[in-house]
Amino acid sequence: MIRMQQYSGTLLAVCIVLMFTIQSCTQMDKKDNPVKGSNAPYAMVIHGGAGTLLKDKMTEQQKTDYIKALNAALDIGERILADGGTSLDAVENTIRYMEDSPLFNAGKGAVFTNAGTNEMDASIMIGSDLQAGAIGGVGRIKNPISGARAVLEHSEHVMMVGIGAETFAERQNVTLVDSSYFFTQRRWDSLQRIKNKETTELSESDDLDKKHGTVGAVALDKEGNIVAGTSTGGMTNKRYNRIGDSPIIGAGTYANNKTCGVSCTGHGEFFIRYAVAHDISSVMEYTGASVVEAGDLVINNKLKDIGATGGAIILDNKGNVAMPFNTSGMYRGYTKPGERVVKIFED
Amino acid sequence: MIRMQQYSGTLLAVCIVLMFTIQSCTQMDKKDNPVKGSNAPYAMVIHGGAGTLLKDKMTEQQKTDYIKALNAALDIGERILADGGTSLDAVENTIRYMEDSPLFNAGKGAVFTNAGTNEMDASIMIGSDLQAGAIGGVGRIKNPISGARAVLEHSEHVMMVGIGAETFAERQNVTLVDSSYFFTQRRWDSLQRIKNKETTELSESDDLDKKHGTVGAVALDKEGNIVAGTSTGGMTNKRYNRIGDSPIIGAGTYANNKTCGVSCTGHGEFFIRYAVAHDISSVMEYTGASVVEAGDLVINNKLKDIGATGGAIILDNKGNVAMPFNTSGMYRGYTKPGERVVKIFED
Repeated sequence: MIRMQQYSGTLLAVCIVLMFTIQSCTQMDKKDNPVKGSNAPYAMVIHGGAGTLLKDKMTEQQKTDYIKALNAALDIGERILADGGTSLDAVENTIRYMEDSPLFNAGKGAVFTNAGTNEMDASIMIGSDLQAGAIGGVGRIKNPISGARAVLEHSEHVMMVGIGAETFAERQNVTLVDSSYFFTQRRWDSLQRIKNKETTELSESDDLDKKHGTVGAVALDKEGNIVAGTSTGGMTNKRYNRIGDSPIIGAGTYANNKTCGVSCTGHGEFFIRYAVAHDISSVMEYTGASVVEAGDLVINNKLKDIGATGGAIILDNKGNVAMPFNTSGMYRGYTKPGERVVKIFED
Repeated sequence: MIRMQQYSGTLLAVCIVLMFTIQSCTQMDKKDNPVKGSNAPYAMVIHGGAGTLLKDKMTEQQKTDYIKALNAALDIGERILADGGTSLDAVENTIRYMEDSPLFNAGKGAVFTNAGTNEMDASIMIGSDLQAGAIGGVGRIKNPISGARAVLEHSEHVMMVGIGAETFAERQNVTLVDSSYFFTQRRWDSLQRIKNKETTELSESDDLDKKHGTVGAVALDKEGNIVAGTSTGGMTNKRYNRIGDSPIIGAGTYANNKTCGVSCTGHGEFFIRYAVAHDISSVMEYTGASVVEAGDLVINNKLKDIGATGGAIILDNKGNVAMPFNTSGMYRGYTKPGERVVKIFED
């Protein structure tokens, strides 16, 4: 047994040395022949939340509404990317569209806190130089993703919260609104049902509302640059200025041109503890795994094994896409030249 | 060239398969022979901030004060661990001591924001089940690390900020104080000098005060459980409710019994963008690197290459310690049965 272990140890050491040598060669190749330039492919992938959606509980109208909204969101990003625009613009504008839709738990459709207020979180990150911006617990920024972008572009800080983040956003000409803008009857009713949960069982859709519904986008532009962004209203009935994974760089959002861009959705506390977005990037960086393999390992093995529900969208610098989730459904889709996929359930 | 690449690709694939196979075998071995039990070694490592400290700018008295405080902090953790206490208790109580000292930028010695207030951040994480608690931007919690522990133990959330975090802490009987408790003349003077920086050059020590001085501890108890914690007053003159890396799980703090526990100190924005604590853990998880190799790669290569200043303390489940930093100094030390090291500069 001991000899077997020694042998394994030596073999492992040899493998690691070989891997690093080969990786160095590959990186040199990439430097010599970068995947850049106006003829490079572009791609965009989005999500609108993952959860315990049941196919037969959704009406045809609901399905149609979500599919239509996801396609419209992809159209916005695709137009920008096809015209040679940046992945930063594509991600911001696509997420703004989803924030403006009451269908998703972000911006206009944000869920309510225990106090009956809205506290939204968002973040955005650039894969070329790992710049990032994030805001947490804001109640008056119409499009939180634009607030996050303002932090990225105009501040020495990466993360701001609450009133401070709102003040900064306002000074950067990001649109602020009265908190009444975020009132929707559906989310209000959901809060009331959840508050009464001692006497009433939660419906599947309440459970989805409670924990999920975050939106996110990852784009690769023609210059080969990856940007990832995430925006959410957080968890219905949350208290004590809780911050979820969406504004946490490394948890809900990560982007690195060397590996991939990631945006997550799910039970935020688990996504923070497992640093999910960064872990997916790390699996690719240190083992050479593909987006599909990395997503599968983290979402369908590590997280699933501990009962952590959710999903992620992943995009690498070649335009390869993965959209893993361990729930019964995830609003999702991607677009590339000549290819468009939009789905809610597994098939 | 193409054939070489194909060959490299195949070799890489073979290596990855071999690595995972060997890793699985090793994990099974670990399960069969866990490093647990009352005879296992214990260890604790701490830091009190890294920065551009210059040896000849520090008086002998200053050096003596810091060395004494670091030793006293280690004494507290060591006593708990030697008596068979938990790494959670050791980390919390050691950090509480450093928070109560005006020498460090945490708790009593916290720096001032641009508005002349104190906004402190802290987090703590358990390596056995990856539970975590974090608070950000709090101004009235006497010992922020205890607030973070309360979130870990008594909330379904991982992270809370501002008034919400203070309210929660108070309900959990964590001690709150009037904000005047955090006034120290040294930090106040530092804020005034930094505000006047248009006309006055910052001294080295101001630069240290501005960006560094965070405290942290990582402990391994006799049960083989690793806990990591970090606490800070953040950056002098910070604005807009900025949150640094210290309360970000994956950035300033991470713990996983399978790899290591990490607490970071330095220019927080870089530590968030590079998800430093989680990256060190990932390097160990996916390449089999030691604490020294992982710390060296992340702190002295990745971060140093982009001009990101700071350091980290790292401790694995065998009691191996690393204390890498890319600045001229870091207040640091570790203790194990029969071994004690406390240092400020390189030698």
